[in-house]
Amino acid sequence: MKTKRSGRLVDMTYYMIQHPHELIPLTYFAERYKSAKSSISEDLGIIKQSLEEQGVGTLITVAGAAGGVKYIPRLSKEEASSFVNELCERFIKPDRLLPGGYLYLTDLLGNPKLVQQIGLMFASIFANRKIDVVMTVATKGIPLAYAVANFLQVPVVIVRRDSKVTEGSTVSINYVTGSSKRIQTMVLARRSLEVGSNVLIIDDFMKAGGTINGMISLLDEFNAKVAGIGVLVESEDIEERLVDEYYSLVRLSDVNVRDKSIEVIPGNYLNHYDQMTIIEGELEDENYPNE
Amino acid sequence: MKTKRSGRLVDMTYYMIQHPHELIPLTYFAERYKSAKSSISEDLGIIKQSLEEQGVGTLITVAGAAGGVKYIPRLSKEEASSFVNELCERFIKPDRLLPGGYLYLTDLLGNPKLVQQIGLMFASIFANRKIDVVMTVATKGIPLAYAVANFLQVPVVIVRRDSKVTEGSTVSINYVTGSSKRIQTMVLARRSLEVGSNVLIIDDFMKAGGTINGMISLLDEFNAKVAGIGVLVESEDIEERLVDEYYSLVRLSDVNVRDKSIEVIPGNYLNHYDQMTIIEGELEDENYPNE
Repeated sequence: MKTKRSGRLVDMTYYMIQHPHELIPLTYFAERYKSAKSSISEDLGIIKQSLEEQGVGTLITVAGAAGGVKYIPRLSKEEASSFVNELCERFIKPDRLLPGGYLYLTDLLGNPKLVQQIGLMFASIFANRKIDVVMTVATKGIPLAYAVANFLQVPVVIVRRDSKVTEGSTVSINYVTGSSKRIQTMVLARRSLEVGSNVLIIDDFMKAGGTINGMISLLDEFNAKVAGIGVLVESEDIEERLVDEYYSLVRLSDVNVRDKSIEVIPGNYLNHYDQMTIIEGELEDENYPNE
Repeated sequence: MKTKRSGRLVDMTYYMIQHPHELIPLTYFAERYKSAKSSISEDLGIIKQSLEEQGVGTLITVAGAAGGVKYIPRLSKEEASSFVNELCERFIKPDRLLPGGYLYLTDLLGNPKLVQQIGLMFASIFANRKIDVVMTVATKGIPLAYAVANFLQVPVVIVRRDSKVTEGSTVSINYVTGSSKRIQTMVLARRSLEVGSNVLIIDDFMKAGGTINGMISLLDEFNAKVAGIGVLVESEDIEERLVDEYYSLVRLSDVNVRDKSIEVIPGNYLNHYDQMTIIEGELEDENYPNE
């Protein structure tokens, strides 16, 4: 039975949101609703316009026999700015300060709505990169990594501090933490990452970047490449950052344990918003003869 | 400017999916689209019908001044059965078997689409319970707990094996593992769980239930109550299960390390599907004079 436009729009919106970054052939919808492709195209136009007006993403149409439509979750600069501001406000609660100047983030990282939004932020900014897998280190980064991976529809791999019997054979490396210069171990199940993968690294907190640098060394063991790095918070006043290119949502600018005060500023995420458009343009124009 | 029905349907579908289990006043939509409440009601009828036809949930309308509409993600028995069968098929790959009879599940738990679907399964079956928070133990259960919590829109708390400086003061208990009778420790940040909470426990694997029993003891320390228990896999042939009421998606029926064979059957999730309707009816009819 043919489906009416109103029912189709609801069903297609639900379906597209459940399948981000996945190319859906128009024939899939045409058969699902027993409708002409021209009607489906019109529906997709309405969905695209609505998503773009809300600033939460877009639909990309790929022409040709192997073509179809793809939902790309992508926040507008306005939506991203307002979320970064909201995050900054949540950070400055004085009772976040723990002995030793550590920050209590468990409430933020335990809030699924916030975690989803953080995931959408990183999925937005890395939407144009070739990413095969999202990597993080146990345990605080795990929910963030899954949220990003869910929007990019790629698997997650989790690096651990110690090997587990339920992971099979593992690869381990030693690395030096950036701030306290201690030697630590990192372990990854051999089966969990394919050789040559393009890896997006996501973590909750970056000080000098030792942990992330450790993950990069681990990637070398798998001949894998860093496709991008995203952290929720970066700390202030680091003399020598071990990591070059990364995006952060929030940056600690001043933590005073004695006065129990925390000052934060937006991270570099928003600064890079304009540059992203340029990179995007380049990606679309350029040819990659070697691929 | 007034919004046309087609645009409204897309926008409302997106909004409802982003806000499960949240009561949205009809006036919110009426103002957002500058439309009459009667039109909004008609739109919601179309969305409700479409969600129900797909077997992925429903909309519940609450009448009165404090009323509104709520999206309840809930899988139909057909959708749930077909997913349990898919899971069972994924489990029986012989290369899952690790030395000692352990199972490699990292590929399943690293797949965000599967994890989301598992989350939807548990959010469906516990949709009618009063749940304030989802609890799991680090690290394998974390993605599952977030997926469930995201559909129920409640926070996640993570129990650990050791205390972390970034968690502040903690409560710890000792418990005995059910199968190997070893004594282990479990730790929860004091701030992360409010006294008297109703807690849904989610984990990836249950043998005799020692770990889950440990979490229940920990809940006692917070005067919190178990609102439900859900596990992805339960193992076979346990003489004495330490946990009474739980739902499992998959049950190992035979693991033979020598022959490298794994046999699984659906867990008790589907058996309880019919009973759930009865419980639901009771909940709606009964009065709770003490609440």
